[in-house]
Amino acid sequence: MTDQAAADLWPMEHAGALPGVHAGERPEAARRLLLAAVDSFARRGYHATTTRDIATAAGMSPAALYIHYPSKAALLSEISRTGHQATLDLVENAAGTAGAPADRMRRLVEDFTCWHARGHTVGRIVNHELLALPEEDFAVVAELRRRIEETVRRLIDDGVADGSFDVPDVRTAARAVTSLGIDVSRWYSERSSESPEELGRRYGVLVLRMLGATG
Amino acid sequence: MTDQAAADLWPMEHAGALPGVHAGERPEAARRLLLAAVDSFARRGYHATTTRDIATAAGMSPAALYIHYPSKAALLSEISRTGHQATLDLVENAAGTAGAPADRMRRLVEDFTCWHARGHTVGRIVNHELLALPEEDFAVVAELRRRIEETVRRLIDDGVADGSFDVPDVRTAARAVTSLGIDVSRWYSERSSESPEELGRRYGVLVLRMLGATG
Repeated sequence: MTDQAAADLWPMEHAGALPGVHAGERPEAARRLLLAAVDSFARRGYHATTTRDIATAAGMSPAALYIHYPSKAALLSEISRTGHQATLDLVENAAGTAGAPADRMRRLVEDFTCWHARGHTVGRIVNHELLALPEEDFAVVAELRRRIEETVRRLIDDGVADGSFDVPDVRTAARAVTSLGIDVSRWYSERSSESPEELGRRYGVLVLRMLGATG
Repeated sequence: MTDQAAADLWPMEHAGALPGVHAGERPEAARRLLLAAVDSFARRGYHATTTRDIATAAGMSPAALYIHYPSKAALLSEISRTGHQATLDLVENAAGTAGAPADRMRRLVEDFTCWHARGHTVGRIVNHELLALPEEDFAVVAELRRRIEETVRRLIDDGVADGSFDVPDVRTAARAVTSLGIDVSRWYSERSSESPEELGRRYGVLVLRMLGATG
């Protein structure tokens, strides 16, 4: 597990939004296991990864792994829940700042895009393996996703209400905004020609156009 | 394997663009194996699926499977190549019709979106398992993807050239257009409230706005 992998997993600039993930807030062994799990899932796919693979990647025995996580699914659940909570925090922070709807939406799209570009490795796993989550954890994650989408929708509603957005179908527009950002995890790589920040800026401009933003 | 699964795999309205896929153009057993492979990959994930799973789902013995396909990867490759070729055909058809760039782009986005909504099951597999393809097949598919993106980019160039589009960064805009459509495969399901056609129409409107289309 390299430092780059750790940075890909939970970008440091959002560290404050990720309680329990960083050193000192959770046993170092548990943190190493989470990073090893992401690395293994990314290499082999979730279903083909064994707990032994993860333990080995973390430099531990399978028995040591079970002290922290009862199963591979428990690791996936923690990765997914933590990532979705951080994403919701980021979206709510942007939507909740002072300012016009267009300014708040620009920041939301910039942050959301940048987050999915930086964390593309964990983003791909989390978005593709939702159905592998145990039922209870799936329900938690589904609720977090619902709140992310709802936050975007309400911000569009605000812009429609004050006349600064012109949107024929708010639900479809909100879906398109989140979809654009989420899909960045699929296609972005360190070899992409634009930085996460630059991509965020460009997507911010495109989304404001989609929403018919004036001014 | 149900008729619905077959329809999900290769929507009939684009049948003409899929040489060899439909009954009569390829041995019925090979066709059944392709559909069974999609079904198995969707249920278990590609890596966890065995050739025995696929043969069983197709009502055949593993030995009968090997007559048609030497491996699980060969099935994935054929599904991926056929699907990407059909997508390229659809995109080139829309871009190549007579008419203003905005009209051609609207049709392209409508068809591309609708295709990914109808074929969401195969779309998810194909888009997620690119790295599981044997090297040579990956190169073929990567070239088809490059041509899809290039077709979109050239159509945007046409609109910029005649002044009907206003786009600060053509490459990013082309990426956003294809990304929006591809990601439909991730989130769309039969339970989605809008039909594939209706979603296509709505996305057509949003994309023309992104491109600053006039008129």
